[in-house]
Amino acid sequence: MDETLLMLPGPTKVAPRVLKAMSDNIVNHRSAIFGEIYTETTELMSEIFKTENKSYLLTGSGTAAMEAALSSIITPGDKILNVVGGKFGQRFQQITNMHKAESKELTIEWGDSVTPNQIKEALDEDEEIKAITLVHNETSTGVSAPIKEIGKIMDNYDALYIVDTVSSLGGDRVDVDKYGIDICVTGSQKCLAAPPGLAAITLTDDAWKVVDSVDSTSYYLDMKKYRKSGAGTPPETPYTPSVSLIYAIFEALKIIKEEGLDNRITRHETAAKATRNAVKALGLELFPKEEVSSTTVTAVKMPEGVTDPQLRGTMRNEYKVELAGGQDHLKGNIFRIGHMGNITYKELAITFSALGMTLKKLGFDIDPGVGVSAISNSYI
Amino acid sequence: MDETLLMLPGPTKVAPRVLKAMSDNIVNHRSAIFGEIYTETTELMSEIFKTENKSYLLTGSGTAAMEAALSSIITPGDKILNVVGGKFGQRFQQITNMHKAESKELTIEWGDSVTPNQIKEALDEDEEIKAITLVHNETSTGVSAPIKEIGKIMDNYDALYIVDTVSSLGGDRVDVDKYGIDICVTGSQKCLAAPPGLAAITLTDDAWKVVDSVDSTSYYLDMKKYRKSGAGTPPETPYTPSVSLIYAIFEALKIIKEEGLDNRITRHETAAKATRNAVKALGLELFPKEEVSSTTVTAVKMPEGVTDPQLRGTMRNEYKVELAGGQDHLKGNIFRIGHMGNITYKELAITFSALGMTLKKLGFDIDPGVGVSAISNSYI
Repeated sequence: MDETLLMLPGPTKVAPRVLKAMSDNIVNHRSAIFGEIYTETTELMSEIFKTENKSYLLTGSGTAAMEAALSSIITPGDKILNVVGGKFGQRFQQITNMHKAESKELTIEWGDSVTPNQIKEALDEDEEIKAITLVHNETSTGVSAPIKEIGKIMDNYDALYIVDTVSSLGGDRVDVDKYGIDICVTGSQKCLAAPPGLAAITLTDDAWKVVDSVDSTSYYLDMKKYRKSGAGTPPETPYTPSVSLIYAIFEALKIIKEEGLDNRITRHETAAKATRNAVKALGLELFPKEEVSSTTVTAVKMPEGVTDPQLRGTMRNEYKVELAGGQDHLKGNIFRIGHMGNITYKELAITFSALGMTLKKLGFDIDPGVGVSAISNSYI
Repeated sequence: MDETLLMLPGPTKVAPRVLKAMSDNIVNHRSAIFGEIYTETTELMSEIFKTENKSYLLTGSGTAAMEAALSSIITPGDKILNVVGGKFGQRFQQITNMHKAESKELTIEWGDSVTPNQIKEALDEDEEIKAITLVHNETSTGVSAPIKEIGKIMDNYDALYIVDTVSSLGGDRVDVDKYGIDICVTGSQKCLAAPPGLAAITLTDDAWKVVDSVDSTSYYLDMKKYRKSGAGTPPETPYTPSVSLIYAIFEALKIIKEEGLDNRITRHETAAKATRNAVKALGLELFPKEEVSSTTVTAVKMPEGVTDPQLRGTMRNEYKVELAGGQDHLKGNIFRIGHMGNITYKELAITFSALGMTLKKLGFDIDPGVGVSAISNSYI
């Protein structure tokens, strides 16, 4: 077992059959055969999004889909409510600004979550808000937002409900239709466990009405073009898509269907609970408040007196387990354990075995096995 | 040999070792090991571009790179000279308009090429022109533009020289530094013979100065962010890249180095000449003027009385050879034979054998072997 175990909030370990599917011969992306693959893949995407709406695949990262969402609905000067409590909330805001909308920021402390009531108050304060942007699972802080409860609030307002489920879809509860999400975006390389390089997006009729009323401020990411090409015969994408990655995500989505989406989410919930228990057993502290902590990534405070290169470097170099560091002002202050995609007790046992040894090596007076023990107890 | 032979102007046949490289395990795109792969791959890209400048890889299609070029240098109101003689020339113009620059169109009849003198006249007419956009190889019409000679003209003007080499780089002569190209873009799935889904771009210092003087009007495609991340330790991309496709293009670029870029271009020139000879031997007519016809794709007029579904449908369904149709107003009026990437006499022999049989089947009074015969004679 020479290969490094990636315990990142994406990219995640990709199943061999997905890698195999990816290496199939390339077909013409303007052919009937590709049209069928594209249609079946986007239908499966809609199933995972839990929506009756059509889904679209973009060749690009999750950020591309975030920009597709905003640049397709913004007319310069529009007011957008950006919920900002981490790096990806900030990103939505930066995209909002770049496309010349007015960002109304709802500031959340990093490590905490927005509440439905805060959304309500912000919308009541300014009835001109055209859309809100919300990150379901803030990968940078390990915080999960209550998208279901916020959805209920959003029912009472005209503003579009735009949700980034990049690092949650396929691992945490997302129900686009029930929650009333108008535009939902995700990425291939997180809980869906496909390789990086694809993003998916789905829009309600309400969202399409807004799209139709504005001139997109992006060419490559103009959703009108994706809708038009997707409705063609054969269905296609406006620009050359990443055919191999579509083979890969198709296979990854089939795996999700085989496992069952509910089973998969339960598996993620168990992994998250086990991870939190193991973190605490090792005497470490969670970064976010536990009640808002993510189902797919756990952020942990860097222990006193330990540097990021010491902790993550030892994990990587000595024990071949790769964790993620903190981003921006959290760099060096937290580390993050991704438990998304095809994660079972096995990967967590390896990870906490490695983390126990690393801490022992760095001089902590602990039994290096207590983390793994907590994992085992969480799975029994 | 059951599989369909793709004779398209992209995507092209991908070598088995490239597909194999693509299916390697995914590494963390924020790791030193990926940084090395990314650096080596972009250095190879610069070698193929023939430039001392750095190159960048975008997760997206060639269109994404075209938009990256323009959205990174445009301030609304700027004047851009768009040379428009086909679908991709139009695309540059559409992107120009979308980013609120003023497009000055230099209209070229589809099937003909712009001349250096026309460029000179257009630039002399309006000294405010900030940049010109030119498609080296207009895939939609099978026309090649004299980018070297136009480069000499451009030396005398401040306007940036932006060239799309999406369907020429690696198959036709491109020398970014010698021709004085300021921004050059390409795609993975054409002459480079990697799978679709990646684009590459390189910029001169002059171009970077302009980039630094404007606020990009695109977030995902903002070149400033690619430069910054690319200069980091480890070098990386601003957003999650398509790791697997970078493995693939890395392998494809190594193949080009092994073959030798000059040998590869000569091979493309031979294939183009052979194709034109075979087209004429079968009594068909080239769409573009022969002296401006492309080295990587040959556009052929649809023979009188034959429909596109008859010709390309028979080729595909009966003989398992896929050709491209015409686009936009050329739909049904031309068909296109791509001879880019890993093309040898073998694929052309199959293609013209199939085309001969197809025409015979459609009632043409020809010897179905004359096309293949012309291919053979061109290769001896």
